[in-house]
Amino acid sequence: MDYKQSGVDIDAGNEVVRRIKGLARGTFTPGVLSEIGSFGGLFRLGERGHRDPVLVASADGVGTKLRVAIDAGRHGTVGHDLVNHCVNDILVQGAVPLFFLDYFAAGRLEPAIVEAVVTGVAAGCRENGCSLVGGETAEMPGIYTPPDYDLAGFIVGCVEEDAILGADRVEEGDVILGLASSGLHTNGYSLARRIVAERMRLRVDDEFPGEKASVADVLLRIHRSYLPLLRPILGKIHGMAHITGGGLPGNVNRVLPDTLDAAIDGASWPVPNLFARLAEHGQVSRDEMYRTFNMGVGMVVITDESGAAAVEASASSANVDAWRLGRTVRGTGQVRIT
Amino acid sequence: MDYKQSGVDIDAGNEVVRRIKGLARGTFTPGVLSEIGSFGGLFRLGERGHRDPVLVASADGVGTKLRVAIDAGRHGTVGHDLVNHCVNDILVQGAVPLFFLDYFAAGRLEPAIVEAVVTGVAAGCRENGCSLVGGETAEMPGIYTPPDYDLAGFIVGCVEEDAILGADRVEEGDVILGLASSGLHTNGYSLARRIVAERMRLRVDDEFPGEKASVADVLLRIHRSYLPLLRPILGKIHGMAHITGGGLPGNVNRVLPDTLDAAIDGASWPVPNLFARLAEHGQVSRDEMYRTFNMGVGMVVITDESGAAAVEASASSANVDAWRLGRTVRGTGQVRIT
Repeated sequence: MDYKQSGVDIDAGNEVVRRIKGLARGTFTPGVLSEIGSFGGLFRLGERGHRDPVLVASADGVGTKLRVAIDAGRHGTVGHDLVNHCVNDILVQGAVPLFFLDYFAAGRLEPAIVEAVVTGVAAGCRENGCSLVGGETAEMPGIYTPPDYDLAGFIVGCVEEDAILGADRVEEGDVILGLASSGLHTNGYSLARRIVAERMRLRVDDEFPGEKASVADVLLRIHRSYLPLLRPILGKIHGMAHITGGGLPGNVNRVLPDTLDAAIDGASWPVPNLFARLAEHGQVSRDEMYRTFNMGVGMVVITDESGAAAVEASASSANVDAWRLGRTVRGTGQVRIT
Repeated sequence: MDYKQSGVDIDAGNEVVRRIKGLARGTFTPGVLSEIGSFGGLFRLGERGHRDPVLVASADGVGTKLRVAIDAGRHGTVGHDLVNHCVNDILVQGAVPLFFLDYFAAGRLEPAIVEAVVTGVAAGCRENGCSLVGGETAEMPGIYTPPDYDLAGFIVGCVEEDAILGADRVEEGDVILGLASSGLHTNGYSLARRIVAERMRLRVDDEFPGEKASVADVLLRIHRSYLPLLRPILGKIHGMAHITGGGLPGNVNRVLPDTLDAAIDGASWPVPNLFARLAEHGQVSRDEMYRTFNMGVGMVVITDESGAAAVEASASSANVDAWRLGRTVRGTGQVRIT
């Protein structure tokens, strides 16, 4: 008996590593000291000249958006989603990314699929100035059923200690801004897929009503990174919330002090067609829509009037819609959408 | 329709987060600035007083050792395996861990199982002085079939730039030492499981021949962390190789300069019963055994005579067997086991 007969193909694994190396190298910034293939990825912090550096780290996946990618046979963008998701998660604390690692696991390693996925990871890393310094590809027969796979990512960024953003900076009367999402981002896919398949009776190649694009096109739109837009104005921001699982009510609360509520006007931004169709066909209640999906708002920024003007100007330059959703008011840390 | 009907239970997710918080808090070292539940985990590097810090990062999983854990219903140790694996991966470059994040994905989130898994992660973090600063638990119906799950880990450690270990420090005539593994560690499980199930016809609760322990006991032995043993003597070591997928031939080569070979005497250490039984019942060739399993050697340390004596003394104090496997000789970067 040998390892290959038991479902693990070391040659395929080596071929995967060979293909990935060049992709990773294309993302390297000056801090990187190691090549892919060393045991750990090495990153010299001194390159950036930090005074009092705080590392900010986050781990995430892309959820069952993978199911859409696998069913559509379009593997090139989920890696980009993953990186952008992780970038946004540390950006809300004021951190700028340093490096990224990925974890890819499948029942059978198909080098072409892994390469497509990592091509997306590398594209996301380049967009965000983040080095892909390592990762793991695992062949796990008996856990995953081919062609299924899972993908997770891990990011480390850095922020000066006196520049960490969060609830302690948020003040009464601050403006609550919403920045447009590009679609579902990476949340709510299990519900969305079920509505699309069972209620709307659409397949991945069918046109999505009102979109002039296929179901796969609409559902695979890349999770937007807000780093390019927000990086130049981080010093003018009090707090931010990345709108992921839990939606506006489950994320904006994470950046509120105990003494303030977020008073959000649900009519202050146009809910995109995609969400309206899902609500309509799935007969999903308003509350459930808000806690499952981003509803068109991918990032919430809380700051004062002058900061709000800066956010609006930067969003306008980046061609991203920004809306004033409401204000912080005295309260107990609640998010109220009226 | 709602999110729960589509297979994602936000309440179960919140219950999981509640249970994990306390476990994570028990691992915190002075550098940690954040609580679990903030968007990213915050770690202040300054606490350790580094001069010229290089971050060393690694991502890994535990492979289909998970299949054994799931089949045996014993979820408490795979997290510990995961941490120790990651710790060893960065230790070979001289790095000591700072913090860890985990990724857990399942078809259905069972809070008790996630809690058991993360209890193992936390135990591993405490053993290695490493803070569990974040992670992700994902409920992914349609990718995983209950009760299956996957688990990945990400570690970040630190080493002074002038203390990075590796091939450039390895010299001709250096001693090659092997440190005993505790079992399969986390590699070769797909082959081992198949031999045990199909050829030896054993179930997880059956006694493993020659072990006075069950199949599950033997296969779930925790991957050993070599940090406690090696940390005090890192300055006396030239290079190290963590023996994972690829075995001795596929890992020792990663720490050899182009001008040296590793000449290893295959009779210099006792191959444990577990590996002998797998080879015998699976009729696995010697070469295939060496490139699939660690064969009893979990870590290889390469250093001079004085360093070798220090490794032997530290291993003896830690009750870990250490053997002189061979020497480095002039060559071309090959591993030769005779």
